[in-house]
Amino acid sequence: MNAPADLSALSPQIATRPIPPALLDALAQRFGARCSTALAVREQHGRDESAFTTVPPPAAVVFAESTQDVADAVRLAAAHEVPVIPFGVGSSLEGHLLAVQGGISIDLGRMNRVLAVHPQDLTVTVQAGVTRKQLNDEIKSTGLFFPIDPGADATLGGMSATRASGTNAVRYGTMRENVLSLEVVTAGGDVVRTGTRARKSSAGYDLTRLFVGSEGTLGIITEVTLRLYPLPEAVSAAICSFPSVADAVNTTIETIQMGVPIARVELIDANTVRAVNAHSRLGLREEPLLLMEFHGSPAGVREQAETVQEIAASHGGESFEWASTPEERTRLWTARHNAFFAALQSKPGCKAITTDACVPISQLAEAVVTSVHEAEASGLPYFLVGHVGDGNFHMGYLIDPDSAAERQLAEDLNHRLVNHALALGGTCTGEHGVGLHKMGFLRDEAGVGTIDLMRAIKQALDPKNILNPGKIFSL
Amino acid sequence: MNAPADLSALSPQIATRPIPPALLDALAQRFGARCSTALAVREQHGRDESAFTTVPPPAAVVFAESTQDVADAVRLAAAHEVPVIPFGVGSSLEGHLLAVQGGISIDLGRMNRVLAVHPQDLTVTVQAGVTRKQLNDEIKSTGLFFPIDPGADATLGGMSATRASGTNAVRYGTMRENVLSLEVVTAGGDVVRTGTRARKSSAGYDLTRLFVGSEGTLGIITEVTLRLYPLPEAVSAAICSFPSVADAVNTTIETIQMGVPIARVELIDANTVRAVNAHSRLGLREEPLLLMEFHGSPAGVREQAETVQEIAASHGGESFEWASTPEERTRLWTARHNAFFAALQSKPGCKAITTDACVPISQLAEAVVTSVHEAEASGLPYFLVGHVGDGNFHMGYLIDPDSAAERQLAEDLNHRLVNHALALGGTCTGEHGVGLHKMGFLRDEAGVGTIDLMRAIKQALDPKNILNPGKIFSL
Repeated sequence: MNAPADLSALSPQIATRPIPPALLDALAQRFGARCSTALAVREQHGRDESAFTTVPPPAAVVFAESTQDVADAVRLAAAHEVPVIPFGVGSSLEGHLLAVQGGISIDLGRMNRVLAVHPQDLTVTVQAGVTRKQLNDEIKSTGLFFPIDPGADATLGGMSATRASGTNAVRYGTMRENVLSLEVVTAGGDVVRTGTRARKSSAGYDLTRLFVGSEGTLGIITEVTLRLYPLPEAVSAAICSFPSVADAVNTTIETIQMGVPIARVELIDANTVRAVNAHSRLGLREEPLLLMEFHGSPAGVREQAETVQEIAASHGGESFEWASTPEERTRLWTARHNAFFAALQSKPGCKAITTDACVPISQLAEAVVTSVHEAEASGLPYFLVGHVGDGNFHMGYLIDPDSAAERQLAEDLNHRLVNHALALGGTCTGEHGVGLHKMGFLRDEAGVGTIDLMRAIKQALDPKNILNPGKIFSL
Repeated sequence: MNAPADLSALSPQIATRPIPPALLDALAQRFGARCSTALAVREQHGRDESAFTTVPPPAAVVFAESTQDVADAVRLAAAHEVPVIPFGVGSSLEGHLLAVQGGISIDLGRMNRVLAVHPQDLTVTVQAGVTRKQLNDEIKSTGLFFPIDPGADATLGGMSATRASGTNAVRYGTMRENVLSLEVVTAGGDVVRTGTRARKSSAGYDLTRLFVGSEGTLGIITEVTLRLYPLPEAVSAAICSFPSVADAVNTTIETIQMGVPIARVELIDANTVRAVNAHSRLGLREEPLLLMEFHGSPAGVREQAETVQEIAASHGGESFEWASTPEERTRLWTARHNAFFAALQSKPGCKAITTDACVPISQLAEAVVTSVHEAEASGLPYFLVGHVGDGNFHMGYLIDPDSAAERQLAEDLNHRLVNHALALGGTCTGEHGVGLHKMGFLRDEAGVGTIDLMRAIKQALDPKNILNPGKIFSL
């Protein structure tokens, strides 16, 4: 396999380091059958959901079952100065998992135990390989839930590492706000804990927040302590269609500005509604729509819903359809979550180049409408969904992965979209992370001085550059 | 002035470095009258509200009026490897401002402009010297407010640097959740920006959160971009007295566990109520009380208040007194904020050794009741207030600062309290920061490996160790 054309811009990152046979021997000895060098296993661990065609896969995959396993694997790799890349379920979107400098993958999927539920404190501690759905299943009897929902049933370690958020973030915050403490294996193979279970603390540097979003480049997250929330007494979901994307977005802007504590407010454009209808056999009106959810007391939910209905009506959104039963709600949210796959199916064989800009809410209509116009003008099929309550939206440009021209077109659209978002005071990535794909954008956004600080921290915590090297910024 | 006895445990930190006359000359040339070496000015900048008797004050104070001033002062100090200590209003409580290694103080109080209000985005950008009250005065006409309220009218730069919180944090979070972005002067005198105005971002390392709570040891915060909130439609405050501290705390615990979005819930013990009555000429019942505030729609506030009244009643808290007018509320909260000074006045000439533990909420009654018993047994006068909705409480032991015995007694009580809080899964500091006073506690709490990571970051970002050296941990 050659490094494909689309990675050529990243060539300084792609510098596969040799894997000494002695390391593979040592891993085999330590982990036995839990260290695999089978090509299929390695290939599965060398890609993610991004549109990057694969670079050579990692040389081996270690299936960790404990923090000690992770620490030992890192220590062995460190001794040979070989990269390690943590792996959850492989649902990242920006090339985070690609072994661009070779190395070994450490799969944390078997570290999937919920270690301690403290319902009275609204906290839970899990191993990094627990997925969000598994967590919510296991704590169901407590009357609590973990709200962060990026769509994919990702691991909580992976969600921490990318600072994930998703549909509920407008009310409950992101992983940034909801991780209380982490256990992390450092570049030297030491195990540290970054915080306590207290809700707040001023005890030194906020290492928890530093590791959240560090994409495996500063340490490997092995345990996560999270905040939980009481299941709301009442939940109500609604769909409302709008004459235009701008009307839907402006409804959202006013809702946020009024301080309505809406739990979810998702935009889906007409284009994507069509794909979702086809994929999930739904009969949604093929117009831009907002999918909303309200959490609270019965009276509170009613009040919120009435306020939003008034705002929507003033923007031509008149037909609220309510989903009051859990089954109806699940069906709607599943449809939303499947939008990505629905869109992919609408163009067989395609891959999606997905944008992730997030702008101050007052700039959202401007950002979204401009992007839609540019996508329409390009002729490339696309989808548009957005966690619009946060000012975060995703265009997905559907490309034939073998067409250099389509890839270029999509990347050009992405570039224009990001530049526009930055000019509007926003960020190139609201929730997916930087990975390989947004390294250039991060430079544009943060500036050289800020990247220098990040680089200094990376070099201080990972002097041999073995932790998921070649990601976020170049050294 | 000699280094006093109470700092002897910190002797490795106290190593005043020589101030080259050439630096003082250069500062005088650059800043003219805005660089002062008058003893009174230096002494005012060499202490805070802590019970530490002063170490020798800084050699000079620079009154910065712009980011460029700060950058130039840092650059000059860096060239001479001389420490710089940022100064807001001097309200910190843990010896943060003491020039234990000499150096110059940079007073940011004149950098007090509100730079940009974006009411539609619920954000504001201020210079670091703006105080929280000034901010709320200046944005009053927007219908928005900044909720974080640590009591003192601190600067927003200082509040960021200590990761402050206070009475409203139970609902609105702390500085950790409410700072969107910072402008920071680095150890090299460069100016960097850590984020954008977007509500969320996954763009690289979370430098914003790293600088929040770094107590001036990683950079000097010169601008702060903050989240704002719509002023609630309805606000209602109430006082409720309880038979015991445990009853008041248990009421709080159940309120949080039920998910009631209470805006403030503050504990004041009978002891402290007595001092507050005397200081603020109030007639509060001299029993443990909770001071509460509810924010929301009129119906929502009513609903919250009813729920909490039911919970309180089940713990013997039956007499709710309501403060519905803004004037009554202001009077109550002023009384709460003055509790610290009221307590100080109750023992003329005393200083307070203040604890700041924060524990998981289920452990709060255990932590508070044990601390009260130990304080009672010691015979030392004390006060007790707490942001109990967060599990955070402050005992203040009132000591004669010249009495080594009282100081030792208070430190022993503090030690036992912190050890207990750590054993219960808590932190030694919920909001005051580490400064000088809690360095030993931080070691106990975080462990050597975690401190090593903090130290590596400090060394990477401040290789000459000029930024508020000798604080948080030893190098």
